Amino acid sequence: MFREEIKVLDCTIRDGGLINNHYFTDEFVRAVYKALSEAGIDYMEMGYRSSRKYAPPSDFGDWKYCDDDKIRKIIDGIESNVKLSIMVDAHRIVEQEFAPVDQSPVDMIRVATYVKDIDKAIAMVNQVHDLGYETTVNVMAISKENEFDLIEALGQLAKTPAGTVYVVDSYGYYFCEQVQYIVKLFQEHLPGKRIGIHCHNNQQLAFANTIEGIRFDCNLIDGSLFGIGRGAGNCPLELLMSFLKNPKFCIEPVLKVIQDYIIPMSEEIEWGYMIPYIITGSLNRHPRAAIALRKTENRDKYVEFYTDILDHLD
Amino acid sequence: MFREEIKVLDCTIRDGGLINNHYFTDEFVRAVYKALSEAGIDYMEMGYRSSRKYAPPSDFGDWKYCDDDKIRKIIDGIESNVKLSIMVDAHRIVEQEFAPVDQSPVDMIRVATYVKDIDKAIAMVNQVHDLGYETTVNVMAISKENEFDLIEALGQLAKTPAGTVYVVDSYGYYFCEQVQYIVKLFQEHLPGKRIGIHCHNNQQLAFANTIEGIRFDCNLIDGSLFGIGRGAGNCPLELLMSFLKNPKFCIEPVLKVIQDYIIPMSEEIEWGYMIPYIITGSLNRHPRAAIALRKTENRDKYVEFYTDILDHLD
Repeated sequence: MFREEIKVLDCTIRDGGLINNHYFTDEFVRAVYKALSEAGIDYMEMGYRSSRKYAPPSDFGDWKYCDDDKIRKIIDGIESNVKLSIMVDAHRIVEQEFAPVDQSPVDMIRVATYVKDIDKAIAMVNQVHDLGYETTVNVMAISKENEFDLIEALGQLAKTPAGTVYVVDSYGYYFCEQVQYIVKLFQEHLPGKRIGIHCHNNQQLAFANTIEGIRFDCNLIDGSLFGIGRGAGNCPLELLMSFLKNPKFCIEPVLKVIQDYIIPMSEEIEWGYMIPYIITGSLNRHPRAAIALRKTENRDKYVEFYTDILDHLD
Repeated sequence: MFREEIKVLDCTIRDGGLINNHYFTDEFVRAVYKALSEAGIDYMEMGYRSSRKYAPPSDFGDWKYCDDDKIRKIIDGIESNVKLSIMVDAHRIVEQEFAPVDQSPVDMIRVATYVKDIDKAIAMVNQVHDLGYETTVNVMAISKENEFDLIEALGQLAKTPAGTVYVVDSYGYYFCEQVQYIVKLFQEHLPGKRIGIHCHNNQQLAFANTIEGIRFDCNLIDGSLFGIGRGAGNCPLELLMSFLKNPKFCIEPVLKVIQDYIIPMSEEIEWGYMIPYIITGSLNRHPRAAIALRKTENRDKYVEFYTDILDHLD
């Protein structure tokens, strides 16, 4: 299906960076940028704009900070219509700085927030909106929020200049009917706002749930190359492109960067469908226990892990 | 969701056997049978009842033939309520023999057929129904059939004693709305028959499409351990169990057999989400070209493969 209003955002570098503390090489980031440019993708997310006070540079690669100069170096000389996006965590705002949009290579700031931090998110949206950036608020972990609190937060967001508000299935818990329900709830309380959707693949439903979002008028859609992302990963960009059938898309550069970079990378860092991520996802929990398990020698002791999680349900 | 009418069939040994010419060890098949028995799964499919004239025993393992004596040896001494199923290909019926059901460990015969072979399938259904077996007809490759021919075939099946007629998305082409459409078409032309669904995972939609089938009243549902099956594989049984929430289900034995047998097996034989299977799936083609590619040194040359497939579209 083709709907011109649908814009696609690739979060390969940003969400993939959560696996390797944002240590991607310049060569790789440049190859991804070039591929997305040739493929006709609308947005590319480069990483986080984190405070170096909160996140010391000894522990993280460049894409934890996304300095404007660094980004300029990556995109230099590549012909492109791709807009660039960076993310900020509302609960980790310390002293991040933003240049006015006309002095920055960045086009859009996405503020990721829990419902409890919605006021911090709104303050950040107001600040960067005034600097000229496009803005989104990505409401995380909504499958764990009670609806009263969520609706209150959506009511606050309705009055902000945020261009898009995102449904984020942080835990990979939803199936299609639940996506339909939550998207309609967002639409009801955010009249006139664009709704976005970002799904996780714990139950192999990221693509199906993204389709469901599209069917119910979400128009800013996240994917990543071969589904790369923390834990079970995200909606695979290549599937999304094949489904959307936008005539401006060209799939070959995406297939090429996957074969040349992503498949070799999958031998080094791990993401995708694994039993521990189903367990946390289907129980509506953060994947951190599953991620921790996969770094131990008990990585494939599923029964033990399942029993342990059930014993520690909150 | 729980609906008592829904019965679950595990096709691990049958569809998984398509990857390794049905050479599974007795120990493995017995472990799967024991796990499914403890887990409360309704049916286990052991493999094919193929003719040794068509398929010489020098080329295939035991599960290509599923002799009654062989099956008896596997299940001996294991307490179980699991019913056993075997499959027959309508276009490969040569001289297969079936004992009356009360002299066989098998409970159900599933006849897989293309629309063109529907009369052979019906003859086989009549034969084994008269011997006392439960029967299904699994209509393959329906995403490539024209609707006139398909409806004619369904009209013929409506008059047979086949207990269930299956929607089979052989090429992994469908997304949810198409599943809804085709399931309703089956229901319209098969009044009173139970509808089954068997999905392939080329586009990571096997589980989502199975859920869609369930929502529209499919009541015989296929899955396999960790999605094992030819090419991109099938709907993962563990996800299905987690979704269905039948109180009789117990997930631990399934997790255990996956950790003990399936994960080690995934190092030896290959199935799952891979770019060549998306390419054939999204183009509504049999996966055979992708399967062949994965056996060559060009296994990860996606752009070349894509271009080649486009050049040879029928």
